[in-house]
Amino acid sequence: MTVGGLRHLLSIEDLGGADGIEEVLRLTDSFVEVSSRAMPKVPTLRGRTVASLFYEDSTRTRLSFEAAAKRLSADTMSFSVSTSSVKKGESLRDTALTVEAMGVDAIVVRHSSSGAPHRVAGWVDAAVVNAGDGWHEHPTQALLDVYTIRQRLGGLAGRHIAVVGDVKHSRVARSDVLAFAALGATVTLVAPPTLLPPDLTGWPVRVSHDLDAVLGDVDVVYLLRMQRERMTEALVPSLREYTAGFGLTLRRARHLADGAIVMHPGPMNRGVEIAPEVADLPQSTIVDQVRNGVAVRMAVLYLLLGAGTDLVPAAGPATIGAEEPARRPAAVEA
Amino acid sequence: MTVGGLRHLLSIEDLGGADGIEEVLRLTDSFVEVSSRAMPKVPTLRGRTVASLFYEDSTRTRLSFEAAAKRLSADTMSFSVSTSSVKKGESLRDTALTVEAMGVDAIVVRHSSSGAPHRVAGWVDAAVVNAGDGWHEHPTQALLDVYTIRQRLGGLAGRHIAVVGDVKHSRVARSDVLAFAALGATVTLVAPPTLLPPDLTGWPVRVSHDLDAVLGDVDVVYLLRMQRERMTEALVPSLREYTAGFGLTLRRARHLADGAIVMHPGPMNRGVEIAPEVADLPQSTIVDQVRNGVAVRMAVLYLLLGAGTDLVPAAGPATIGAEEPARRPAAVEA
Amino acid sequence: MTVGGLRHLLSIEDLGGADGIEEVLRLTDSFVEVSSRAMPKVPTLRGRTVASLFYEDSTRTRLSFEAAAKRLSADTMSFSVSTSSVKKGESLRDTALTVEAMGVDAIVVRHSSSGAPHRVAGWVDAAVVNAGDGWHEHPTQALLDVYTIRQRLGGLAGRHIAVVGDVKHSRVARSDVLAFAALGATVTLVAPPTLLPPDLTGWPVRVSHDLDAVLGDVDVVYLLRMQRERMTEALVPSLREYTAGFGLTLRRARHLADGAIVMHPGPMNRGVEIAPEVADLPQSTIVDQVRNGVAVRMAVLYLLLGAGTDLVPAAGPATIGAEEPARRPAAVEA
Repeated sequence: MTVGGLRHLLSIEDLGGADGIEEVLRLTDSFVEVSSRAMPKVPTLRGRTVASLFYEDSTRTRLSFEAAAKRLSADTMSFSVSTSSVKKGESLRDTALTVEAMGVDAIVVRHSSSGAPHRVAGWVDAAVVNAGDGWHEHPTQALLDVYTIRQRLGGLAGRHIAVVGDVKHSRVARSDVLAFAALGATVTLVAPPTLLPPDLTGWPVRVSHDLDAVLGDVDVVYLLRMQRERMTEALVPSLREYTAGFGLTLRRARHLADGAIVMHPGPMNRGVEIAPEVADLPQSTIVDQVRNGVAVRMAVLYLLLGAGTDLVPAAGPATIGAEEPARRPAAVEA
Repeated sequence: MTVGGLRHLLSIEDLGGADGIEEVLRLTDSFVEVSSRAMPKVPTLRGRTVASLFYEDSTRTRLSFEAAAKRLSADTMSFSVSTSSVKKGESLRDTALTVEAMGVDAIVVRHSSSGAPHRVAGWVDAAVVNAGDGWHEHPTQALLDVYTIRQRLGGLAGRHIAVVGDVKHSRVARSDVLAFAALGATVTLVAPPTLLPPDLTGWPVRVSHDLDAVLGDVDVVYLLRMQRERMTEALVPSLREYTAGFGLTLRRARHLADGAIVMHPGPMNRGVEIAPEVADLPQSTIVDQVRNGVAVRMAVLYLLLGAGTDLVPAAGPATIGAEEPARRPAAVEA
Repeated sequence: MTVGGLRHLLSIEDLGGADGIEEVLRLTDSFVEVSSRAMPKVPTLRGRTVASLFYEDSTRTRLSFEAAAKRLSADTMSFSVSTSSVKKGESLRDTALTVEAMGVDAIVVRHSSSGAPHRVAGWVDAAVVNAGDGWHEHPTQALLDVYTIRQRLGGLAGRHIAVVGDVKHSRVARSDVLAFAALGATVTLVAPPTLLPPDLTGWPVRVSHDLDAVLGDVDVVYLLRMQRERMTEALVPSLREYTAGFGLTLRRARHLADGAIVMHPGPMNRGVEIAPEVADLPQSTIVDQVRNGVAVRMAVLYLLLGAGTDLVPAAGPATIGAEEPARRPAAVEA
């Protein structure tokens, strides 16, 4: 397994390209199957503890990781900056070492500062998962996005994906572009110049400032969340004008090719980057993305912590045995 | 079982009257028995996930539902508005669909807006429990109240119950009146006119503005919490005057009939609607109500999610095998 | 076992002196061993519930207790003042009785008011652990400190320990002094007069206002956290002057005897009471203290709740059986 020795997941690039990503997707298939069982829980990580260390609020991402950990029978611990000693001036390093010393095997880090999870990974022996750092990366979001595309469209190779909106400030866009391109898709960024990174050297993308010109030609429209702050920062004149130029209105959605899908990382600003009616079309994958997010994060936690355990015990007496310790040595049975 | 097909619990009326309520009470008996065991936990809902989705703070109610879920071996997930994407403008519908997509089987909803849980129930496949919506209903509170009355007085038929205080703004009062009347009790609302709903048409109640005239004649005095806001809204002249007219002072408590009980949904304002000494009398049931709340919520979660599972495994080798293995007696293994 | 009948842990003195403390340390040895296992979890307190009732934020202490409870397979419940009915004016007594009535076996109390946990212990049947009350005590902190000293230095008898800093406002200092002295260490408090309690009668300590004069002579330097508030209260002229007189700078650390260790209860103010480079020296025990904290709290919870259960089941078939499932079909057993 090419990603068998993975120690941390900080960037999509940690998976070493298409083969590594594909492995995670295959693992995710197994956990999607687990999630469909009457008993959607396996003992794979019993006795392990997964801590979330969130310096920005993100209930959605935190709960998704915690749900994934619990389905693997791990314990969870939630260290939120808003009620913690971080407020008392403790450094990131001291906080990370403290969390690890409480017996934690994996730390899921969300931070407003790009690179923070990488720094944590340099300090601790625990596995570190980047759950979003500044404008940098959010690799599990990209993995759940590619899983969802594969599920709907069969694969990414040869597909054309438009990533629309505030690319400049989006860690989701960065991780998605890396993953989409690695799997052979063509990516077009669609945004006003003010919402694009000043330097796109090295990005495997095309650029357009005209959503209407691109729409009929794509298999996937990936809409980024539009933050209200961009307006006060004068990067867009108004949300209404943003919507007029770059929102996926119902009128625009009618120009999508048959079979094209509409994606969004959530939470949506209905009426801004996406019209309410469009969000509810069958080609919208927003709820699927959330559902797949749990299975993808099970796969990632398994990769990081599950070495030597059975991937997913088969359904049957053994599964019912499901609640049993994963690592029961054979000799004990005898 | 008349309530066997229950999909949601949004209103006391979902239980279809006395027979349905009685069934929940009988189920609650079983879970009260479980709670008294050395191992007060059963595997009934193992693998299920119960999420709380609270748009108003209520640690007390949330923890009661979570304790109930854990005693049934379900996993829990807590989605609190104060740190969630709701702050980012996400709609109730999108939040509910997101929570469900994370693999949730039941959603416990608290919302300041009447009818919010009903709307959630229309959007999701998960079971929905109303944990209090606006001034509308709080059905599990009513169930724990009737359970507590039955426990103390043997039954509700023919009993006279005074519900005292701010009925107008009380979801507890609405659910209680429905449940008390369905089980054959006579209900008298006791409040100043400003704290009664403007239209009581269809309410199966009598009304009084004179607590002293009613006190000697009732089996139950149910005191509602008096919110400080009512004073600033000029609905009562002052808390002191409210207490003078409608508080259960020690002097008034002496006029209660032998065997009458004093109830309160908590948290109490000692010294406002209830005198401190009265709250501590043996006829006060406040702590019993909290204790019964966990068992009632176990019964409700079992009704909604437990189809096909054993109600409550009998204590004995099978149960012990269930949860307990640590202390599994050697003989059982043989 | 001299502390076998312990009902609450409110003060170090509840352990009845050296023998009781030593018993907790021996129990902690067992739980340190458990924590080092591939499956660092035992079923000892399965079915028990441990609630934290925190009137002051302390994520670090709360998570340590919760990690301890989970490793013993207890359920946890977290009642935090910031989102609870305490804000609605509920009394400490009513809140404590409510928490207990939800089926809680132990309540871990943190409160800004000295003696609050003692009051709670007088109201409830549940076991109460003081997790820090006002300027009074924090007994589990003292236990993890003595455990860490024993681990590094072999024992406390005959050792010389300097407790440096804001002793006046420190519950850690009070509990530590009691525990250190009980185990035969000599304690010197080192602080400016404004940061010492006005009356030290009965404290088994020496006092110094000169850290440099003491440093070369001690086995342990225990640095207390310096709160910024002390400056605004004019108890110290400035943090810089505090550091100049009482901070453990790198220069000062060079005067420590060989084998001496540096302790801190966390969270550290690096650059104030401790220099960053000193915190990272091998003789600093800060991370060990955190790690030992979980095992010490397992020992305390076991003492309070585990009567009649096996201390720590040996690894092997019996333990593994421990984690096993409810619904294993009979056929599998055969």
